[in-house]
Amino acid sequence: MTGAPEGESVSLDLLKKKMIEFAKERDWEQFHSPRNLLLALVGEVGELSEIFQWKGEVPKGLPDWKEEEKVHLGEELSDVLLYLVQLSDICGIDLGKAALRKVELNAAKYPVSKKKSQTDNNVTGSC
Amino acid sequence: MTGAPEGESVSLDLLKKKMIEFAKERDWEQFHSPRNLLLALVGEVGELSEIFQWKGEVPKGLPDWKEEEKVHLGEELSDVLLYLVQLSDICGIDLGKAALRKVELNAAKYPVSKKKSQTDNNVTGSC
Amino acid sequence: MTGAPEGESVSLDLLKKKMIEFAKERDWEQFHSPRNLLLALVGEVGELSEIFQWKGEVPKGLPDWKEEEKVHLGEELSDVLLYLVQLSDICGIDLGKAALRKVELNAAKYPVSKKKSQTDNNVTGSC
Amino acid sequence: MTGAPEGESVSLDLLKKKMIEFAKERDWEQFHSPRNLLLALVGEVGELSEIFQWKGEVPKGLPDWKEEEKVHLGEELSDVLLYLVQLSDICGIDLGKAALRKVELNAAKYPVSKKKSQTDNNVTGSC
Repeated sequence: MTGAPEGESVSLDLLKKKMIEFAKERDWEQFHSPRNLLLALVGEVGELSEIFQWKGEVPKGLPDWKEEEKVHLGEELSDVLLYLVQLSDICGIDLGKAALRKVELNAAKYPVSKKKSQTDNNVTGSC
Repeated sequence: MTGAPEGESVSLDLLKKKMIEFAKERDWEQFHSPRNLLLALVGEVGELSEIFQWKGEVPKGLPDWKEEEKVHLGEELSDVLLYLVQLSDICGIDLGKAALRKVELNAAKYPVSKKKSQTDNNVTGSC
Repeated sequence: MTGAPEGESVSLDLLKKKMIEFAKERDWEQFHSPRNLLLALVGEVGELSEIFQWKGEVPKGLPDWKEEEKVHLGEELSDVLLYLVQLSDICGIDLGKAALRKVELNAAKYPVSKKKSQTDNNVTGSC
Repeated sequence: MTGAPEGESVSLDLLKKKMIEFAKERDWEQFHSPRNLLLALVGEVGELSEIFQWKGEVPKGLPDWKEEEKVHLGEELSDVLLYLVQLSDICGIDLGKAALRKVELNAAKYPVSKKKSQTDNNVTGSC
């Protein structure tokens, strides 16, 4: 039982609510200032990077990784996400809404018709 | 029109689908290897950090920030999220499922009854 | 015996030579590609951030920190430095020379007479 | 004129002195709290990562990079170093001394005779 209705997609709001409840139950809200959460997020990005650091180039789908490595990767990706959700919440930012808006801004910035290469100087993907 | 039904929460799957489509339309899939996306994510975390770098401690809700600063913050938070969603997808990780599982692991690791302080040596919040 | 002459300052070249020797002796050169070292550096920056993550604002000189915390901090700062030295070396960049040049570029960019505030929009310190 | 005697190696102390002077002249010391400098460092690591993000695996020595790309890389590596030097100084850590000590700790941790592989579970290079 994960709190997500069977077969439905996990929403950012669900994760936000879970993290608010999680912190409240443990009286951890006092530690959740924006810069504390930001540095915690940086710490998790570091742990995520450590998974990839000695591997050289890694093919899509991680065909040669052991199951336990993939599970570990999922945990580190999740840690980054959960701090990101908490940081957004503490800053009063609606992360889901902001993300949809950013996708549209990116679409306007990089129109399909131009077919610009991502290796061009001023093109850095979705940012 | 953002692609999310009116009043409903934004799901990780919706963002994943949008990013897959976005990359496909621009023929950018060729650039989306795991380590490329990871480094792009690190780049965005850097931009997020720059927003906070000279501010000293920042109170919850960012009461003194200008509206344009908050909009900028929402964009950088989104950039981190969108690369995180893409990195997870390219690695074959179901990010929403992994995040719910991680919340449960954290709950088991830090039981409510113990009321352990986050400042304890081995306690680092939700990670 | 640390390899640095008594009372003299530690140079970047000394650290570079030590790290080259260290990797060679252990046959680790094979792992030291630019992006491997970069991700290792990101991992260390994460560990550095973890030291500061739940502390709120920290005063200069770390007056309230235990000696063991300062020793740990010195180790993480060193890890970042040592990977930075190795990354520069593997990329063929003379880090000391580049750093002196960058100080001069910064001095030209932020002239003393103007006394611009670091909080201005386009001012980000020494970068 | 770079401030380093002709042909001599650049020391961490020289960089420290230059950065102290640089900040003092511009009245920027007020912004240089430990966590401000740490987040500035994270920001520069992000810029460093952006240089490598869409390149796939990069060979040692960067044989295919344009001269201007290498100059840019030297600048970003320097920015990381200069903030690292300032962060260490503001925390009261002697970075050079700490780095030499860390090299010795690493040498003790990974003895040459054992020839352990860096890909082993608990081996993460020089950290």
